[in-house]
Amino acid sequence: MPRNILLLPGDGIGPEIVAEAEKVLRKVNDDFKLDLHFESALVGGAALDEHDDPLPDETLDKGRKADAILLGAVGGPKWDGLPMAKRPEKGLLGLRSNLELFANLRPAILYPQLASASSLKPEVVSGLDIMIVRELTGGIYFGQPRGIRNLEHGERQGYNTYAYTESEIRRIGRVAFETAQQRGKKLCSVDKANVLEVTVMWREIMEDLKREYPDVELTHMYVDNAAMQLVRAPKQFDVIVTGNMFGDILSDEAAMLTGSIGMLPSASLNSDKQGMYEPCHGSAPDIAGQGIANPLATILSAAMMLRYSLDEEEAAQAIEAAVSKVLDQGLRTADIMSEDGKKVSTREMGEAVLSAL
Amino acid sequence: MPRNILLLPGDGIGPEIVAEAEKVLRKVNDDFKLDLHFESALVGGAALDEHDDPLPDETLDKGRKADAILLGAVGGPKWDGLPMAKRPEKGLLGLRSNLELFANLRPAILYPQLASASSLKPEVVSGLDIMIVRELTGGIYFGQPRGIRNLEHGERQGYNTYAYTESEIRRIGRVAFETAQQRGKKLCSVDKANVLEVTVMWREIMEDLKREYPDVELTHMYVDNAAMQLVRAPKQFDVIVTGNMFGDILSDEAAMLTGSIGMLPSASLNSDKQGMYEPCHGSAPDIAGQGIANPLATILSAAMMLRYSLDEEEAAQAIEAAVSKVLDQGLRTADIMSEDGKKVSTREMGEAVLSAL
Ligand SMILES: CC(C)[C@H](C(=O)O)[C@@H](O)C(=O)O
Ligand SMILES: CC(C)[C@H](C(=O)O)[C@@H](O)C(=O)O
Repeated sequence: MPRNILLLPGDGIGPEIVAEAEKVLRKVNDDFKLDLHFESALVGGAALDEHDDPLPDETLDKGRKADAILLGAVGGPKWDGLPMAKRPEKGLLGLRSNLELFANLRPAILYPQLASASSLKPEVVSGLDIMIVRELTGGIYFGQPRGIRNLEHGERQGYNTYAYTESEIRRIGRVAFETAQQRGKKLCSVDKANVLEVTVMWREIMEDLKREYPDVELTHMYVDNAAMQLVRAPKQFDVIVTGNMFGDILSDEAAMLTGSIGMLPSASLNSDKQGMYEPCHGSAPDIAGQGIANPLATILSAAMMLRYSLDEEEAAQAIEAAVSKVLDQGLRTADIMSEDGKKVSTREMGEAVLSAL
Repeated sequence: MPRNILLLPGDGIGPEIVAEAEKVLRKVNDDFKLDLHFESALVGGAALDEHDDPLPDETLDKGRKADAILLGAVGGPKWDGLPMAKRPEKGLLGLRSNLELFANLRPAILYPQLASASSLKPEVVSGLDIMIVRELTGGIYFGQPRGIRNLEHGERQGYNTYAYTESEIRRIGRVAFETAQQRGKKLCSVDKANVLEVTVMWREIMEDLKREYPDVELTHMYVDNAAMQLVRAPKQFDVIVTGNMFGDILSDEAAMLTGSIGMLPSASLNSDKQGMYEPCHGSAPDIAGQGIANPLATILSAAMMLRYSLDEEEAAQAIEAAVSKVLDQGLRTADIMSEDGKKVSTREMGEAVLSAL
């Protein structure tokens, strides 16, 4: 069965890292006879430069038709001064919302080979394996009304709306409970139910769902406490579920606990299992074009794509095993370099994964 | 000049820790002839139990008349099921907003004596000294409209409003710039200007204010990146300024970097320098009534009160020196206990500070 993969290199280091992940995907495509077909398109700043639009119709069309999307990263100082509608990030947000990619899965895993990269003490993070399930198409990112208005007495007011409907909460809740069922069966729902009404309803619905998943232990935590607990004792968590904004903050905090965010992939799925896959790190404009970025998070995102959208578990595991092998070989890009590592470029890392496959 | 201090013990460990801080304040009152007069009142769950109101009029009246307030903590599982308007937290939020305590100062300081308590590597946190300036009476905590409504197609929607006016941003910005001027002259403003319009305006106004404080270096950071950078390299920060919600999350995260949140005070000020002072930690209902809570954060909050609201720098420093001395003596409550520490109760810790004064 032929499947279409859309490659969206995007901005900054995006093109460099997606190029390596593409090679890896093409190799497993041949090895495992996956019948994958590749297209590519512009998004973010790259699309702004070319079409004055961070999400051109052509890109969105191709996205709709694709079985899965592999994205590099978007954004950079070049486009920072632009009005909201013309920001690279709008390309990313537009894809998420138009394709209804409401379920964002962000693992925070500490690779044993990279344990020393963490700023936390080894005993606090060794063996860390958390999955953050972030709602991605609702909440304050998309709530209406929003904008900047003139008040009667002459000054301006900026405003955004943090809103969720019951069904939006329910569908992300189900993904989280199911994810927990396949893992350690512990789900922590993060909210600010002592202050925000929208999260009072969030908590209610999570409690309601619990009855359908009796094998999963559900707890609740306020977001400020969650931000603390991730620092204090991150291994207490198995799966965390939360809204778009809190998920943005906590998933980045959790990723950084590993000290090697250049290793962490992510998946954004809709209810048809169509998905967009991207590294957790950003476009890193400061090192773009130098050939030193770490392509492993993008390569691991390709593995997630094979697992979640294409049902090719074997190929996914082959990639993950290959990545583990290159780490065992001591190969390190600059961001994860350690004393006894062998420093390699983006391309050399990609080639090493290819050989390890 | 007589000054009125309102003591609000609140819930959980609140009464135990405020009792120790009160003794310390009474001692410096005598030693330094400060002419302080003490009153106390109910707030939070304690006020709910007695008056069915988390912020009785009497408490608010006393608060208005006081030069400064010392608060323990509010909240606990006993009151968790209550409707929003009847939560202990409403007492705290009501005080903040009615007294216009818009400027929340939250230091994250690592006491050298407690360096090993941190979950981070010593080299990452040793000497840590960050000040977080959090806006406390606006943003999504107080934005209107808010609530849970029935949508036309039958399901419910929860919603809150994240709003700031220019003048609200400007006044907290000034506090932050002035704080930075008195410290390392570096200010990092945290927002989510790539997604939220309200924070686009926030960033604009911070940039605008910069011209009045040419000696302060202003940078901007997205909140997700700030959550990461606090874990990766917290010492890059001097002063951080941000809105109410982001400030709630980041100040708790920053506090936990020290591993000894039982040591961290906070101040909430209005434009008349009237202030409410409270420990950063919560009401810790799990250990309430056992006499084992750490009173030092509350005692240090009393020191902040002397400094910021009462202009009694000498007395403030005397308390801080006494706290440092008891740490040097190896005295430790359970939360900061280490191998070679001498474990003491809440009261013993309070007495030790009194003797050290
Ligand atoms: C680029 C930005 C809009 C985006 C977000 O905030 O969702 C990013 O931080 C992420 O987490 O994927
Ligand atoms: C108790 C709660 C309402 C409060 C807040 O969120 O502001 C607390 O977390 C704090 O940070 O002081």
